[in-house]
Amino acid sequence: MEPYELTASQASLLIAEKKLSCEELARSTLSRILAREPIIKAFRFFDPDQVVRNARELDQTPRKSEMHGLTFGVKDMIDTYDMPTTYNSPIYFGHAPSKDAACVAVVRHSGALIVGKTDTVEFASGGRMAATRNPYNLEHTPGGSSSGSGAAIGDKQLQLAFGTQTGGSHIRPAAFNGIYGIKPTHGVVSREGAKQYSHSLDTIGWYGRCVEDLQLVGRAFRLPEVQNSERPSVKGLKVGLCRSPNWDKADEWGKAALLEAARRLEAQGAIIVDLELDNRYRELNHAQEIIMKGEGTAAFLPELLSGHPDLHQHFIDIATNKLQVTPEALVAAYDLAAECRRHFDSLFGATLDVVLTPPSTGQAPKGLQSSGDHVFNSIWTLLHVPCVALPVGLGDLGLPVGIQLVGPRFSDVRLMSIASACASVIDCHPSLSSFSK
Amino acid sequence: MEPYELTASQASLLIAEKKLSCEELARSTLSRILAREPIIKAFRFFDPDQVVRNARELDQTPRKSEMHGLTFGVKDMIDTYDMPTTYNSPIYFGHAPSKDAACVAVVRHSGALIVGKTDTVEFASGGRMAATRNPYNLEHTPGGSSSGSGAAIGDKQLQLAFGTQTGGSHIRPAAFNGIYGIKPTHGVVSREGAKQYSHSLDTIGWYGRCVEDLQLVGRAFRLPEVQNSERPSVKGLKVGLCRSPNWDKADEWGKAALLEAARRLEAQGAIIVDLELDNRYRELNHAQEIIMKGEGTAAFLPELLSGHPDLHQHFIDIATNKLQVTPEALVAAYDLAAECRRHFDSLFGATLDVVLTPPSTGQAPKGLQSSGDHVFNSIWTLLHVPCVALPVGLGDLGLPVGIQLVGPRFSDVRLMSIASACASVIDCHPSLSSFSK
Repeated sequence: MEPYELTASQASLLIAEKKLSCEELARSTLSRILAREPIIKAFRFFDPDQVVRNARELDQTPRKSEMHGLTFGVKDMIDTYDMPTTYNSPIYFGHAPSKDAACVAVVRHSGALIVGKTDTVEFASGGRMAATRNPYNLEHTPGGSSSGSGAAIGDKQLQLAFGTQTGGSHIRPAAFNGIYGIKPTHGVVSREGAKQYSHSLDTIGWYGRCVEDLQLVGRAFRLPEVQNSERPSVKGLKVGLCRSPNWDKADEWGKAALLEAARRLEAQGAIIVDLELDNRYRELNHAQEIIMKGEGTAAFLPELLSGHPDLHQHFIDIATNKLQVTPEALVAAYDLAAECRRHFDSLFGATLDVVLTPPSTGQAPKGLQSSGDHVFNSIWTLLHVPCVALPVGLGDLGLPVGIQLVGPRFSDVRLMSIASACASVIDCHPSLSSFSK
Repeated sequence: MEPYELTASQASLLIAEKKLSCEELARSTLSRILAREPIIKAFRFFDPDQVVRNARELDQTPRKSEMHGLTFGVKDMIDTYDMPTTYNSPIYFGHAPSKDAACVAVVRHSGALIVGKTDTVEFASGGRMAATRNPYNLEHTPGGSSSGSGAAIGDKQLQLAFGTQTGGSHIRPAAFNGIYGIKPTHGVVSREGAKQYSHSLDTIGWYGRCVEDLQLVGRAFRLPEVQNSERPSVKGLKVGLCRSPNWDKADEWGKAALLEAARRLEAQGAIIVDLELDNRYRELNHAQEIIMKGEGTAAFLPELLSGHPDLHQHFIDIATNKLQVTPEALVAAYDLAAECRRHFDSLFGATLDVVLTPPSTGQAPKGLQSSGDHVFNSIWTLLHVPCVALPVGLGDLGLPVGIQLVGPRFSDVRLMSIASACASVIDCHPSLSSFSK
């Protein structure tokens, strides 16, 4: 087994025991990237010499944490002091921030090896698409806007990577690339130094190749823990099967993944209950759109006023409020979201441990013109709740399909424990076996 | 009259008519700053040569907007691409951001002359205090954390300046320095590029020497307008006199300012009604503290992990959650705030046009060790509502006292119109006349 094939948790142990050096891991990673980059195009920037230099320095530094030496990619929406940050926008080509974004600083101080900047849809919104291809089928999108991070993890080019989510930009690529990802509770990870789109929605998340890798990063961020000493197991786990108000938008294999996951969990003793969200929740996708576009007007005003000739029409439309989002509509959207947040949290406890729901419409769509639909993500982003994406298997096109687990606000640590217990039951992905519908 | 004495609106007209050049205004401003800086200490950075150079360039550029050439100060919590940004923290001394914060970019693209960085309490939170003194009495605080911006406007060293508010950091210095200030609706001005403390509270605001100056900046930010074509006048204006749940914390002159403002408005035909907020609002100051400190843990984690020896204990305590803010307490605080936001907005319309309430406890306290209490600000920051501070007169120590006007979310433009109508009635400040209690 090549070092690049190790999960973050596996490599962490070997590095701690000095059975693997940071440089060895870095060199193996680089050879993987160099072999695959021409095909997958996950990166907007990486400098092999810099990576080796930094890995050597880590080898000569006392181990900073369990993250020491692990390979980490950074979505090019997020500032890095030693690499360009372009947000994949021509108006920022050559931009070199002087400071790491908060999330990068946290993992760098924890010893992570920052390998490069991964491709993104322009400003994580629209305009220019990422050049990245789905490692399972080059003709298909890896999802977006966290396209490069998702594909790099799915293609084993990196162990860990940051993404961001405002609509469905983080969880959807996790599903499309057959990987694990967490979008934490809104606000528990600082977004300082990430380009802003919608301040009450933008959330930093990360990807890994297993739940344990997500947990490892979660410890670096000292995610808050709700009071609950009980160690979750699948047996007796109360799972709310939530087809969501948009079930008709799921394709055959997206639907099959959700039902198959529920079946596998039930077979291991989980208690599956149908969770139907009331009518207020049907309005949340629209509310998310109102808030995203409404808040976007302030976010892109500087770019509009810069008068830069290469600013994409997509952002001119947002900054000039082409959608005509009114303050009254924004207030109604905020208040509805607040009401549903409170209600959603109240579902948990006696009757429910976790919600099981689709992370995407199903398999990744063909072509790179669209990164897919966030119809299954907007609700959860707007509710500010933590979401963990898990792979289930492959659909008929050989493309991954998965599920997401959702918990109440601030249950991030517990949700990852639940995901850890569930993963071995529902993830048959490494065998690449198709499942029966 | 020296050019530096002109309000922004006055100077804007003269510049438009080419009766005043940007360089003339800049040079007059610099002579004022150079004369006063040794005493007031409002600045952390300014470079007279750079200011003159930029003013000359503006003189040779077609007029960008009505803000062309106006002097603007930037609180040193906010990034500027051409000046150091230290957040008044030794761990960022020498820090030179490569990009303007969004709010700076907006006014710079609109033609403002960025004069310098104004002093701030460290990270707009605690730790190191600003060195700034109150221009009305050097032994007293100018308030904080937007100390330098408040004092520079109060001392006529600048026409306009940015501050930020998480608790009461923007409106309180307005009151202490006898100036006008607006803390807009949360989120209508992008905070990108301002150091983060509490993501759901941090708000960029600005100061001026009259309401018209605040409105001028508001137009640059294209603040949203609620549907209401009626032009407000004091006659018939329905004013909710809100002593707030913390009335007993106000000093004699703080109380007198509020009641005097109400009396003056009533004498001009306003309808003053007592507004008593219900018991839920009594919990909001505590909820604000929970949210500020709870969200602060993520904000200061990078600085904590940096292991910098000069990180102040104040931030170590926040980052390590010394207050032991629990997720459960955070959720309760968020939900209470959301409930009160909705309720507060519902007060307006048929029965209420505006709320009149104290902006501070009264006159600025003696000494520079404390920048004053935010007890009269936390509620409004947490409610996300726009607040406009107006001066009323001077207290017995010769220090300014004022009031603030508050409106429902997104009523910023209308609130400034109301403030404009009220200002001539309640502001006897320019004459420095004391008023009778």
